Amino acid sequence: MPASMTTPIRRALLSVSDKQGLLELARRLAACQIELLSTGGSAKALREAGIPVTEVSAHTGFPEIMDGRVKTLHPAIHGGLLGRRGTDDAVMQAQAIAPIDLLVLNLYPFEATVAKPGCTLEDAIENIDIGGPAMLRSAAKNWNDVGVLTSPAQYEAALAEIEADGGLSRASRFKLAVAAFNNVANYDGAISDYLSALQLDETLTAIAGHENFPAQINSRFEKVTDLRYGENPHQQAAFYRDLHPAPGTLATFRQLQGKELSFNNIADADAAWECVRAFVKPACVIVKHANPCGVAVSQEGIGQAYELAYQTDPTSAFGGIIAFNREVDGATAQTIVARQFLEVVLAPAYSEEALQAFSKKGNVRVLEIPLPEGTDLLVAHPGNHSKRVGSGLLIQSADTGMIQADDLKIVTKLAPTPQQIEDLIFAWKVAKFVKSNAIVYARNRQTIGIGAGQMSRVYSARIAGIKAADEGLEVRGSVMASDAFFPFRDGIDAAAAAGISAVIQPGGSMRDAEVIAAADEHGMAMVFTGMRHFRH
Amino acid sequence: MPASMTTPIRRALLSVSDKQGLLELARRLAACQIELLSTGGSAKALREAGIPVTEVSAHTGFPEIMDGRVKTLHPAIHGGLLGRRGTDDAVMQAQAIAPIDLLVLNLYPFEATVAKPGCTLEDAIENIDIGGPAMLRSAAKNWNDVGVLTSPAQYEAALAEIEADGGLSRASRFKLAVAAFNNVANYDGAISDYLSALQLDETLTAIAGHENFPAQINSRFEKVTDLRYGENPHQQAAFYRDLHPAPGTLATFRQLQGKELSFNNIADADAAWECVRAFVKPACVIVKHANPCGVAVSQEGIGQAYELAYQTDPTSAFGGIIAFNREVDGATAQTIVARQFLEVVLAPAYSEEALQAFSKKGNVRVLEIPLPEGTDLLVAHPGNHSKRVGSGLLIQSADTGMIQADDLKIVTKLAPTPQQIEDLIFAWKVAKFVKSNAIVYARNRQTIGIGAGQMSRVYSARIAGIKAADEGLEVRGSVMASDAFFPFRDGIDAAAAAGISAVIQPGGSMRDAEVIAAADEHGMAMVFTGMRHFRH
Repeated sequence: MPASMTTPIRRALLSVSDKQGLLELARRLAACQIELLSTGGSAKALREAGIPVTEVSAHTGFPEIMDGRVKTLHPAIHGGLLGRRGTDDAVMQAQAIAPIDLLVLNLYPFEATVAKPGCTLEDAIENIDIGGPAMLRSAAKNWNDVGVLTSPAQYEAALAEIEADGGLSRASRFKLAVAAFNNVANYDGAISDYLSALQLDETLTAIAGHENFPAQINSRFEKVTDLRYGENPHQQAAFYRDLHPAPGTLATFRQLQGKELSFNNIADADAAWECVRAFVKPACVIVKHANPCGVAVSQEGIGQAYELAYQTDPTSAFGGIIAFNREVDGATAQTIVARQFLEVVLAPAYSEEALQAFSKKGNVRVLEIPLPEGTDLLVAHPGNHSKRVGSGLLIQSADTGMIQADDLKIVTKLAPTPQQIEDLIFAWKVAKFVKSNAIVYARNRQTIGIGAGQMSRVYSARIAGIKAADEGLEVRGSVMASDAFFPFRDGIDAAAAAGISAVIQPGGSMRDAEVIAAADEHGMAMVFTGMRHFRH
Repeated sequence: MPASMTTPIRRALLSVSDKQGLLELARRLAACQIELLSTGGSAKALREAGIPVTEVSAHTGFPEIMDGRVKTLHPAIHGGLLGRRGTDDAVMQAQAIAPIDLLVLNLYPFEATVAKPGCTLEDAIENIDIGGPAMLRSAAKNWNDVGVLTSPAQYEAALAEIEADGGLSRASRFKLAVAAFNNVANYDGAISDYLSALQLDETLTAIAGHENFPAQINSRFEKVTDLRYGENPHQQAAFYRDLHPAPGTLATFRQLQGKELSFNNIADADAAWECVRAFVKPACVIVKHANPCGVAVSQEGIGQAYELAYQTDPTSAFGGIIAFNREVDGATAQTIVARQFLEVVLAPAYSEEALQAFSKKGNVRVLEIPLPEGTDLLVAHPGNHSKRVGSGLLIQSADTGMIQADDLKIVTKLAPTPQQIEDLIFAWKVAKFVKSNAIVYARNRQTIGIGAGQMSRVYSARIAGIKAADEGLEVRGSVMASDAFFPFRDGIDAAAAAGISAVIQPGGSMRDAEVIAAADEHGMAMVFTGMRHFRH
């Protein structure tokens, strides 16, 4: 059975919600002497265009009833789609079932129905198509004999084949059948998601809300690309994307130049991008091994922000991922490529000069992620985040919690200065994106030392101090952020010894009094946020 | 419209692949004067049991054709399921469509079909049910008037309602309709997964293999429980499980006592469980903030393994997650509860005495995860792992790579002793589960210092040394594992200064020669694994 084995097309059924390309398709099919069956709006469009068409009700001899609920659920249609050519010919003849060799059908996206403002449960239910998915499944099951088109994007290639060979090859039919089953899975998955998440009033009529975590969830992803390997060379990997990615998220990137992205590139790029989006003023974030190793904000622009971010930890910045929240200019790009090896750069846009500078280092992956106008940069994409565990999935709402100066509670005798408050909020934002336990030292909105990923908080504080000292950065006068409360005073003592002058932390420890007393002893200012930012 | 509004049931259609409970259901429905329609095997079972039943073909007046491909795809069935009682009564009468008020239908799981050894593409396609899902969707869409049962587990409650009230309440019908749509989504998702992953030979007939990463993936999860909150108190969260969890994975846990699990508990428990499963001999792993903070293996049993694991870092062990790969005995449980605060304990089993000991600390979450006989403990669940990024999903095959003593390549003048080789392999296994960059110091199969999650490898090495010194553990004579190669000699120099005598690492750096020379200078033994274990 050669893959090219083409089956002839004598009869096609057309029933589409997306009318794009319908008339040209119908005309060219009719020109191939293919009889056209159709229903409702599709039939009307064909008739108006003067293309000969038979209504399904005329074909089945059964009227369209119940406002269209039952029109194609008929043996003449499903027998015509499902009959095995060769095997079932006799029974088809006996029952007067004419073969339907091509189905052209697309479903009105259920997500679009329920996204309409004011969509009621009744509207949603009424919009669930029964006949369409049944026909798609019949045609796709019988792919040996029948072709199925589910999207206008497939028309041109199919027409070219049909016009050349009188039908579709075996390989084309199989590919189209898989697409049809994917289509049905998406449609039914969307219905399941919607209904499972509904919160109804007591009459089960009005929608009171939507549950964030319904009894069942279905996720559907389309492949963007295979990856060379995974986190390690002995692991296979691929990158997928939501069917409807949120604007401004990593998955919407466009790669402007560079080698193919690796698994670790994408993971680190996400960490860098989410962090840099958290800042309103021009910012630069350098990420290595999933952690920011340098972050800075500068009124003077992203060039200066990069200079400062780089200074925090030039060793780790080597081979890092660099993200900006503003268009990258030529001078900044030139400075970067002249100074350091980098894997990826991310930004909402690039100047011509910047692209030219990066093109000198052809391996550097340059990613552009447009940030939609009016998007609140402060809010990361607000969907749910998930974490895979052995045969399970932890799902949580995104950590969109943010702190303003007004939210801070001063707990020490000494209050922070306005300059310290700016630095405290800067350090707090960075700490949110550092793996827990996270300690961040900062001054003049530049990270001075970052202590990441320790099992005990005091070690994160010590690491931040050690790193600042190793890079010759002055800790005296810096502030410290801690992503969770200090369980003991030791972290404060260590910070004071290093020269830290002000602290931001959630508070809420049983030993807060002891921790506050320690800060007072050292003459430090300390503020509580009341909000924790674990990130593991 | 009160939620209790019950619609009468006059006629039911039964068509089940799972015959469990069918006869009792049919008998009790018949006793309620409900007319029964059925097809194929279900009809045969009813007839043999002497329960009056009408064949669907007799009801529709249309024969079952094409080996059953077309039997229920008929207006008499779908009109009977979809007709709106009240609105469509006249047309139903005119077309002689009798209302079908209850559908009892379950589908043969598609996953089970394709899991059968030797299942061909043809078998799989032939087993795709067209009529069943169409009826489920019709009945569920018309939930206002029709009830739909998709699982024997639903029969008893439905029967009780029908026997008491003559039908199902509005609330019951809605709940059952949602379950039916979930069921269809699962069925179609499984078909989509299977077909998308197929690799066919050139004739598109024989299955040559399955793609690990098809063009579309559908994941389906069922909720295990809502969680109090997520990684942080301001985030909402829930825990889900695969529809078919792999035996021995975290999601198969049974909680024997304790407070409800938190988001961080579950994430840390998974890290601990995957790590402890990597050992064959009695082992204990203590995890805090997603990282092992103490690991040990002991021939003497898990009690001694716990003692040694605890010694590594008693500060971090406080409030930790403790996992064992053997049944927990009473003495070990008593030692733990007497000594330390812990959040969760995990093990394949517990003795009576152990459970009694833990019951004294009623908050401690005690999880039992049976390890199936014959499971190779060394191999973590071999499915794919995924990592969520902004609107995207990174998927990779699990890191099941393992190293045996024979795989090691000795690169220094000095070869490691057999005792050192045992310790090197132990340290290597631990490093695999420590966040990258990971450095593990170990001696006598006990961790001596763990350096986790640093952006630069040399800091991980320094942290491991600092922690060992802080706990008064003797580094001299210990070995060191590094999850990836040393880019420079500085990590080796630092380790030598701390007293490390042997090193295990992947090798593969441009500066391997310099790194080997450093080890030789210090009189250390070093082996290369050729395999990296990043884990971020």
